[in-house]
Amino acid sequence: MLILITYDVNTTTPEGRKRLSKVAKKCLAYGQRVQNSVFECVVDATQFKQIKLQLADLIDSETDSLRFYNLGDRYKSKVDHFGARASYDIEGPLII
Amino acid sequence: MLILITYDVNTTTPEGRKRLSKVAKKCLAYGQRVQNSVFECVVDATQFKQIKLQLADLIDSETDSLRFYNLGDRYKSKVDHFGARASYDIEGPLII
Repeated sequence: MLILITYDVNTTTPEGRKRLSKVAKKCLAYGQRVQNSVFECVVDATQFKQIKLQLADLIDSETDSLRFYNLGDRYKSKVDHFGARASYDIEGPLII
Repeated sequence: MLILITYDVNTTTPEGRKRLSKVAKKCLAYGQRVQNSVFECVVDATQFKQIKLQLADLIDSETDSLRFYNLGDRYKSKVDHFGARASYDIEGPLII
């Protein structure tokens, strides 16, 4: 399934930037960064539970906000992009 | 249907902040701001087309990124929140 992770953190502080960097690193193990604090990951149900627990542990729950959206298995028609930096197909071939 | 709108814009410039403010204002006509640049709106198919066109017109397509995700009609079980500022139920009663 495709899951979308959105992370709201104050990046004007070094601590905030550090937490964003940690969240990004974890998300990139499962998918791609499509915007500065938006990540799309393709996971199974077990991985979804894992990533939620792992990320919830990285954030400052007093100040940061972390949201997860489950777009299911048939997600290709559910996403539209406008403007800069269109993302690549995460299940497609990796071109280096 | 619930749609999710994520907007990536450089808010260190006054122009970027102005565009975010315009995008937010437009989105708030259809739904709620759940993070600084993430909006959830409940729309029908016609409104969805309209909001895409309206927002695409507000952004700087050279520098900003705007993404739309369609979470369908049965979306309540598809969203999880951790940390600060849980959002309210957009279809529930408004408590002032």
